[in-house]
Amino acid sequence: MSVIFERVALIGLGLIGSSLAHAMRRGNIAGHVSGHARSEATRATVTRLGFCHSVHATMEEAVRDADLVMLCLPVGALGPAMAQIAPHLKKGAIVSDVGSVKSAVIRDCGPHVPDGVHFIPGHPIAGTEHSGPEAGFAELFDGRWCILTPLSGADHVAVEKLSAFWRACGSRLEVMEPRHHDLVLAITSHLPHLIAYNIVGTAADLEEVTQSEVIKYSAGGFRDFTRIAASDPVMWRDVFLNNREAVLEMLQRFTEDLTALQRAIRWGDGDALFNLFARTRAIRRSIIEAGQDVAATNFGRNPEKK
Amino acid sequence: MSVIFERVALIGLGLIGSSLAHAMRRGNIAGHVSGHARSEATRATVTRLGFCHSVHATMEEAVRDADLVMLCLPVGALGPAMAQIAPHLKKGAIVSDVGSVKSAVIRDCGPHVPDGVHFIPGHPIAGTEHSGPEAGFAELFDGRWCILTPLSGADHVAVEKLSAFWRACGSRLEVMEPRHHDLVLAITSHLPHLIAYNIVGTAADLEEVTQSEVIKYSAGGFRDFTRIAASDPVMWRDVFLNNREAVLEMLQRFTEDLTALQRAIRWGDGDALFNLFARTRAIRRSIIEAGQDVAATNFGRNPEKK
Repeated sequence: MSVIFERVALIGLGLIGSSLAHAMRRGNIAGHVSGHARSEATRATVTRLGFCHSVHATMEEAVRDADLVMLCLPVGALGPAMAQIAPHLKKGAIVSDVGSVKSAVIRDCGPHVPDGVHFIPGHPIAGTEHSGPEAGFAELFDGRWCILTPLSGADHVAVEKLSAFWRACGSRLEVMEPRHHDLVLAITSHLPHLIAYNIVGTAADLEEVTQSEVIKYSAGGFRDFTRIAASDPVMWRDVFLNNREAVLEMLQRFTEDLTALQRAIRWGDGDALFNLFARTRAIRRSIIEAGQDVAATNFGRNPEKK
Repeated sequence: MSVIFERVALIGLGLIGSSLAHAMRRGNIAGHVSGHARSEATRATVTRLGFCHSVHATMEEAVRDADLVMLCLPVGALGPAMAQIAPHLKKGAIVSDVGSVKSAVIRDCGPHVPDGVHFIPGHPIAGTEHSGPEAGFAELFDGRWCILTPLSGADHVAVEKLSAFWRACGSRLEVMEPRHHDLVLAITSHLPHLIAYNIVGTAADLEEVTQSEVIKYSAGGFRDFTRIAASDPVMWRDVFLNNREAVLEMLQRFTEDLTALQRAIRWGDGDALFNLFARTRAIRRSIIEAGQDVAATNFGRNPEKK
């Protein structure tokens, strides 16, 4: 592959930032990758791992002369970061982000974007339960979707160039309205995380069942929830604070449905239970057919027969 | 390994029954394994796969002369099955089950157990999202816990022999009071399944977000829930109908906690969100340390760096 951006700046070098650096190296996508992390310890780790060409203590230094600036920070930190880097951005530069919420990011960042700079919000639907610069790997985005939510009047060439960048990183591309993105992600990502965090908390607080019992017998289903409940707490706090309306709407629907199930259990309505349990199988099949999960039994945890 | 039971009968040849057959073969645990399945199609599949020495159209034939009878049926089918096989059981035989609920099974089966037969309820905490005789594999129980809930006055030698059987199948053994078992499983298995089924149902019913969008962007977290929401509907209907009190109790706690989270989101209480999200990480670590889940990133779905 050929270089798409001569100079790329990564602001934030956690799971996503570091994975982008690895993916750029794999595909020879950028001539020079500069990185910024707030903490000295993170900068030392990044220097040791060597996935950036240069590592900087300030955002201002990192973004100097950059053709693409990727803000890989928790959603709540994006507005202040944009305000801080704005005076230092090169004319014609593209600034994007990887935040899980888009309307709030546009609200927070938009006013600070200088004339002549292209701000194109984005969100790669990819992640793992691990965080930090050591968690990144080049394959994170392979086959996953990346959603761009360009503002009305966005420069077509800039959007195309950013799309080419993500494709070169392994992603499949989609363009969406910010409000619709936030609704789609509320059900496919935010609510699942909220529920996973919640049930793990509920289990930890029981008196009659000990924590060691919960751990020992987690193979009954509980352990599937603990993976996403191990995700970065700051990132997720910011998601819920910044996608409030959509999350509350999905949560309301979820709770209504759960109340109906609770009633079916209380009154012994086996048909209602069976009907729900039978129709949810089809969705799993579709997800596997769409290449968004592995078909292997038990996520491949057990060796498969034969 | 040496033979533990000369003749073992498997009543029900789905995921658990067929996996037991494979595990017995692997460990040379039984001299002869007879199997019964209600449907002719299943019996034909089992005959083709060849994991039983003999396949029978009736339970009566299958249990004849058996030293161990394993009832591998949905919880709601166990009482009738016990009543049906009772007159045909050999004196001194052990009858056990693999049901996910224990108090109700004891209530339903207990009255039918003939004198001189040892009824020792059991529950292997192992499974996958696949069902049927083709889903089984010998390694299913390896390193997983099996809980026995013997009745008071149970024969020590019989309990020991059944324990040896499960150990030979790869399990780790635990003995528990039935009521406590049902409470522990309500939080580690039943509630997780209920919630997974519920959120998949909620997502399927949305109007503003299409089903294809839910599938496409499921890598954001949703797909983790779909695995267990693809489990056998009859088995799970029976679990909820038969562990009502414990499930409703756990569901009540879960809902209270979720309501508190909802309130934190509505009022923008970032500290409350952060505090919960930070403490759930430790439980994931403990589950991995206890050997009950894989440490691989993303359940090993993505290739790991290096």
